[in-house]
Amino acid sequence: MNLFELYPVSITNSLSGRKELFTPINPPFVGLYSCGPTVYNEVHLGNLRTFTAFDVVFRYLTHIGYKVRYVRNITDAGHLTNDAGEGVDRIEERAKLERLEPMEVVQKYTYGFHEVCRIFNILPPSVEPTATGHIVEQIEMVKKILDNGFAYEKNGSVYFDVRKFMKKHKYGELSGRNIDDLLEGTRELDAQEEKKNSVDFAIWKAVTPSHIQRWPSPWGDGIPGWHLECSAMGTKYLGKEFDIHGGGMDLKFPHHECEVAQSVGAYGKAPVRYWMHSNMLTVNGEKMSKSKGNSFLPRELFAGEHPLLDKAYSPMSVRFFMLQSHYSSTLDFSNEALGAAEKGYRKLSAASYKSGVKG
Amino acid sequence: MNLFELYPVSITNSLSGRKELFTPINPPFVGLYSCGPTVYNEVHLGNLRTFTAFDVVFRYLTHIGYKVRYVRNITDAGHLTNDAGEGVDRIEERAKLERLEPMEVVQKYTYGFHEVCRIFNILPPSVEPTATGHIVEQIEMVKKILDNGFAYEKNGSVYFDVRKFMKKHKYGELSGRNIDDLLEGTRELDAQEEKKNSVDFAIWKAVTPSHIQRWPSPWGDGIPGWHLECSAMGTKYLGKEFDIHGGGMDLKFPHHECEVAQSVGAYGKAPVRYWMHSNMLTVNGEKMSKSKGNSFLPRELFAGEHPLLDKAYSPMSVRFFMLQSHYSSTLDFSNEALGAAEKGYRKLSAASYKSGVKG
Repeated sequence: MNLFELYPVSITNSLSGRKELFTPINPPFVGLYSCGPTVYNEVHLGNLRTFTAFDVVFRYLTHIGYKVRYVRNITDAGHLTNDAGEGVDRIEERAKLERLEPMEVVQKYTYGFHEVCRIFNILPPSVEPTATGHIVEQIEMVKKILDNGFAYEKNGSVYFDVRKFMKKHKYGELSGRNIDDLLEGTRELDAQEEKKNSVDFAIWKAVTPSHIQRWPSPWGDGIPGWHLECSAMGTKYLGKEFDIHGGGMDLKFPHHECEVAQSVGAYGKAPVRYWMHSNMLTVNGEKMSKSKGNSFLPRELFAGEHPLLDKAYSPMSVRFFMLQSHYSSTLDFSNEALGAAEKGYRKLSAASYKSGVKG
Repeated sequence: MNLFELYPVSITNSLSGRKELFTPINPPFVGLYSCGPTVYNEVHLGNLRTFTAFDVVFRYLTHIGYKVRYVRNITDAGHLTNDAGEGVDRIEERAKLERLEPMEVVQKYTYGFHEVCRIFNILPPSVEPTATGHIVEQIEMVKKILDNGFAYEKNGSVYFDVRKFMKKHKYGELSGRNIDDLLEGTRELDAQEEKKNSVDFAIWKAVTPSHIQRWPSPWGDGIPGWHLECSAMGTKYLGKEFDIHGGGMDLKFPHHECEVAQSVGAYGKAPVRYWMHSNMLTVNGEKMSKSKGNSFLPRELFAGEHPLLDKAYSPMSVRFFMLQSHYSSTLDFSNEALGAAEKGYRKLSAASYKSGVKG
């Protein structure tokens, strides 16, 4: 008998907003996907919290006997500077700034991300697919959505037709957004002229001749839409319908909502049974943000090198601190709270050693 | 003034067999490519020697002022169990054995490879491209070679037409092979029936319906030929002609010879100015090989866990040992030699500390 038969797991499903008993599609196998980093700069503390949360989900489900295939992607193309699917590719912008080839940027920050994961004791996932590694799969998915009539091509870009999609399917269920509110609330941007509606989003984006990141497609040279990669890679490694999809709360809309629409648009069924979203970080009670100057990087935290930090905190103290609060609650960083976690972690480690348990 | 203007570098070029003064195409930039591992099992000691050799080339050229873009690939598709381009995909075969999805095998052994590199103080390259990450680029290159008339399609596979290529260009220059000898010496295999000549090699290989690793192409579903990935990725990141290409001696033929032919076949020019080949390992004077039972893995060496090893040797002692011999000479592993290197390394480290140099 597997432990999971003795210990039922409940998950607060973002789709229903309710705590639900977890029943995998095909036990003992579990398909778990979480959105990984866009490797255009150093991984930030919010990312780290998300990856830590799903690391624990992965470890716990494995521990109670499930055979978990955990997919956590690396976004190395297609993520534009504006989440609405406009602007320029983040990797390419960074490459220009650092005078590097885009894939050198990808290498530098992927390597740095792996280093932070190692220091933070985050296990590598079962598969770590990249957007550039799945251009073919993404093009095939765009074709399917076009064939099904839920997308249109304009000047070499392909957009998902949200209005048309809504004639047959629901849109906005995951994030609880109302499409009419969205339409009213969205300012028309210049680049949106190609779109029939402002809520439409690019699933393939044409590039100008000066772009370095580019791939040939039936619609001309371009890059895949950001939302598309997770749909294509989730489907490839976990199937058209899988158990759990996680990510940071800020990805719920539009990223995850668009993932659902893309899968339904391509295969006619919702891709995910349980959606889990980790919450944001605050510092001394205020939202952590670059513009406020109150955001620090993992390495600054581990080195104590930030005006807001009294001292350095060891990676394991920080991990312990993060895991003391529920992933779906906001987590407040302060020297007091970190200091208390440090003491608690030291106590726990010492107790484990004393009792002969490997700390 | 850059150091490299003061310190001219000479390279024994496998192409000429002679020591030549190194003059980059576009100084201070240097393009360096070395063939990375096929991630279907644990990296072996021979691989490690090759990667260490080119790590030193990368470090030294950077040290004397060159701006080096170092590309070292990961082969995660297309490398068949038989180097002649027949058999089954090594990753897929391993996946069946370990009951994993092929990309889980890739993840497991890529991660392990990176761990060994870290322990062995091998720097990450500037770009670490994968075969699966360049399916589009490989398909485009196959199209070019077909368009130029140097390949033919048969049952969904595309083969490089060596005979036809030789009517316009040279083949065999790098490895010094004579094509007529090759033709006589090659036993006709069943699977070679599709080929016009036994020396022809697959640049795209059709797959049977049971294959998991597969991508759509103009010739049907298949996988790229193993030799092709390095040509496509070298071209993408270093240009149609670049400075240095390295790899283990065992890759000179057919792998590197085929790379040259593919580039000439696609773009009309030889891709590489300087070819460097690292030599093989021996153990107590005998060729290291799995079948002889005298091959040990890096982790076995570092743990001293092999019947032929008297004790564990630290990674840095082994690195020091490897670097004491020239990369193009065979290197003999014995407890005596490793022990001597260990002493030498300890002495050097102690001396550096004493003199205030960071060891």
